[in-house]
Amino acid sequence: MNKKNISMAVIRRLPKYYRYINELLKNNVDAVSSNKLSEDLGFTASQIRNDFNNFGYFGRQGYGYNVKQLHKEISMILGLIKNYNTIIIGAGNIGQAVANYTNFGQLGFKLKGIFDINPKLTDLVINDIRVRDIDLVEEFICNKDIDIAILCVPRAVAQKICDTLIKGGIKGIWNFTQVDLITPKGVTVENVDLSDSLLTLSCLM
Amino acid sequence: MNKKNISMAVIRRLPKYYRYINELLKNNVDAVSSNKLSEDLGFTASQIRNDFNNFGYFGRQGYGYNVKQLHKEISMILGLIKNYNTIIIGAGNIGQAVANYTNFGQLGFKLKGIFDINPKLTDLVINDIRVRDIDLVEEFICNKDIDIAILCVPRAVAQKICDTLIKGGIKGIWNFTQVDLITPKGVTVENVDLSDSLLTLSCLM
Repeated sequence: MNKKNISMAVIRRLPKYYRYINELLKNNVDAVSSNKLSEDLGFTASQIRNDFNNFGYFGRQGYGYNVKQLHKEISMILGLIKNYNTIIIGAGNIGQAVANYTNFGQLGFKLKGIFDINPKLTDLVINDIRVRDIDLVEEFICNKDIDIAILCVPRAVAQKICDTLIKGGIKGIWNFTQVDLITPKGVTVENVDLSDSLLTLSCLM
Repeated sequence: MNKKNISMAVIRRLPKYYRYINELLKNNVDAVSSNKLSEDLGFTASQIRNDFNNFGYFGRQGYGYNVKQLHKEISMILGLIKNYNTIIIGAGNIGQAVANYTNFGQLGFKLKGIFDINPKLTDLVINDIRVRDIDLVEEFICNKDIDIAILCVPRAVAQKICDTLIKGGIKGIWNFTQVDLITPKGVTVENVDLSDSLLTLSCLM
């Protein structure tokens, strides 16, 4: 199916489907029912069936969904059949934490460079990558075919650096800065907000 | 309504409702329709109406939901009418990043202490809080009435430190370690996984 036809609501559910199905696949589970998915993921069973129907993917009565096929289908919609080249901008606490996060590589996000404005940090090596001066980023994006920039800079410089990245040709920004970035059409921004997770914890306590 | 009767599915939607309604309140918006909420949050309008009905909260035809009342109701269900005392365990990159995150304080989560196993870090002051030795944590939890521990330690020591926190009387753990913690009944764990957000970005690109 064409990715462009999927609603934002479905897109928000897709990563959760993907991670869950990925676990089932690792554990050699063959099939899963919409009721089981509903229990573990917290979406209604009818919503799940509806989502999968939309992908052109139908379960079998009494058997459920074939895990392998479902994994393949959702991977394709999520764009995970290709790898993404990423760079981190800002080698402070958040930048370093993200650089050391091992999961992303497994999902196909390849860290190619780390940049910082502070010349003192450009001798630092994080996860085998030497921090580069931010002045080099525009050329780097273009030459190394970088898809995604992970923005971990202070709020005050976020928009300015965002503009530079876009001039370099970046198409996706994973934004940890808590600033509402202004970007032209064709550039996708995904904001990270940890509040949801903390609020869920307090609700469950 | 009794919090215990709310399904996990609804609980996962609550933080999103809360943050959205909070923004409306700040911008002096009086009312909001389920259709508008659906558009901006990505849940179906009927699901939203159903959720709010469950809270015993009904909108008015042609007017929608009263933002102030909705905010109050959801705050109560989320447990945000009280403050939570929190501590951070692990003063590395993630711990420092979380300590410097300003949003949480505004939501009622008060950072009372930071602990680390490394004696070299116990001279460090982050966000006006001096890092303490982990050996002091059990007593601290009890004496200072700590509700939530934010676990930012290396994987290898995560379960051991989790056990210590529980012995100290902690009731909620916000877990950044990527380890599936084993905890007794009565202790709530919320795992942070940034993959969902990154997968959403790649899907939208």
